[in-house]
Amino acid sequence: MDLGFIGLGVMGRPMAGHLVAAGHQVFLHTRSGVPADIAEAGGIACSSQREVAEKAEIIFLMVPDTADVERVLFGAGGVAEGLSPGKIVADMSSISPLETKVFAKRVEEFGCSYLDAPVSGGEVGAKAASLTIMVGGPDETFAKVEPLFRLMGKNVTHVGANGDGQTTKVANQIIVALTIEAVSEALVFASKAGADPAKVRQALMGGFASSRILEVHGERMIKRTFDPGFRIELHQKDLNLALQGAKALKVALPNTATCQELFNVCSANGGGASDHSALVKALELMANFEVGQGTG
Amino acid sequence: MDLGFIGLGVMGRPMAGHLVAAGHQVFLHTRSGVPADIAEAGGIACSSQREVAEKAEIIFLMVPDTADVERVLFGAGGVAEGLSPGKIVADMSSISPLETKVFAKRVEEFGCSYLDAPVSGGEVGAKAASLTIMVGGPDETFAKVEPLFRLMGKNVTHVGANGDGQTTKVANQIIVALTIEAVSEALVFASKAGADPAKVRQALMGGFASSRILEVHGERMIKRTFDPGFRIELHQKDLNLALQGAKALKVALPNTATCQELFNVCSANGGGASDHSALVKALELMANFEVGQGTG
Repeated sequence: MDLGFIGLGVMGRPMAGHLVAAGHQVFLHTRSGVPADIAEAGGIACSSQREVAEKAEIIFLMVPDTADVERVLFGAGGVAEGLSPGKIVADMSSISPLETKVFAKRVEEFGCSYLDAPVSGGEVGAKAASLTIMVGGPDETFAKVEPLFRLMGKNVTHVGANGDGQTTKVANQIIVALTIEAVSEALVFASKAGADPAKVRQALMGGFASSRILEVHGERMIKRTFDPGFRIELHQKDLNLALQGAKALKVALPNTATCQELFNVCSANGGGASDHSALVKALELMANFEVGQGTG
Repeated sequence: MDLGFIGLGVMGRPMAGHLVAAGHQVFLHTRSGVPADIAEAGGIACSSQREVAEKAEIIFLMVPDTADVERVLFGAGGVAEGLSPGKIVADMSSISPLETKVFAKRVEEFGCSYLDAPVSGGEVGAKAASLTIMVGGPDETFAKVEPLFRLMGKNVTHVGANGDGQTTKVANQIIVALTIEAVSEALVFASKAGADPAKVRQALMGGFASSRILEVHGERMIKRTFDPGFRIELHQKDLNLALQGAKALKVALPNTATCQELFNVCSANGGGASDHSALVKALELMANFEVGQGTG
């Protein structure tokens, strides 16, 4: 099938690579030029987003933020200029659920259809084709694109209508951030009370406090291994989507707001590029204390 | 072995029952009188806490709060009056980690030793002898009592010195409350954005957002099944231990504090006896909206 892929960064490059490797004709565009390896593997470089949209039936996007998706779709030389009826736009970026609904409607006006399909799993998941993909959009469109999503991810869920994929991603990022914060409060408290945080974590695994975050990020906090992983500055972008969405939707997210402020504390102290488990350092800073440095 | 058990409420009654059923001689005392069934099974009613301490080698406590433990141990006719060297006090109540260290020192002055051994798993776990038991105290004391703990619980961990068991319980309750709050924020956001919260929860299971709380309490929020389980008013008691401890230890627990306020919102609206997953109702109230009542 003739496919398009726009945005070949840390995530998009390996994802597009899986489509090329599966034998599809893939038309590529990225601002910084198409990498040599993916071109050698068979990917076809295009000079504009419009050209990608003209040549491909399904156009995938993987760009940083809401404004980038808007520019790629509707800017000068953008995807919209190359659309014709029957084509599909599949945006795999993580962007605003509310704007996504607007973008989907605008794409439908060209006789095309739209999927929002943000991912989780990071660079590791992108390379291993093991991403979790959360999809919003019409049933028949999902059915057409699903086999291609499965070349890039393992856990592909059709959540509902347009916007619901992005909403699910935001919900995911809220839970992940707030669970990291929960484990941070517990380990800082326990450590300051004189207990061994490693033993406390061990005792809590298997009970109602157990989570992937306690397992993976809790261990990072104890072993002080804060290389990303997933960077705080990216999680700040995602919580910003949550908080902006909350304002627009009229819903209060008090702990998400506090969590964003704690990430700001990390950034202020040079930690923006650390793994998000380094959120614990904000609480440590506020308590003038470090996990493991027991006082008991 | 001659054992004592003080406090035969919802938790203590089945726990003491397991000790009696295992063939131990168990001396019992409770403020409201020893229940007939446990006496018929072989438990021996005593007229005071002192009498229990005089007759038993190991005295278990299971009472509501810090002040109750202090009264039972050191009040008139209390355990301390009946202690003699070599006896062991094992407090299985959930109380202040800081006061626990004081109680342990006072008990040691009688030539006795002390374990703090709070539990999680609730009434169901107490009846099924499947409690998680988090123990603080000396190695040799733990070794003596461990076989008895295993008659009441499945997951028994010796975390460290006196106080560390209670600290671990507080850490557990922080994580559980804050993860319930995290799932609540995510599901209210998703639902208000028009997504189906059941599908969102399904899509998030298996990824980094997955936890026992998302599984069990997330389902309760969606199905609106708020019968306890674990009551909000009990979780408020536990978060109070966390927040009082935080003040004494000089550590900031911002999301624990907010969570306690959200439980207060639940109480204010008649929800104190609901399961702690009903925390979601505080956010729903604030957003004038209910999970599942989509607007998309």
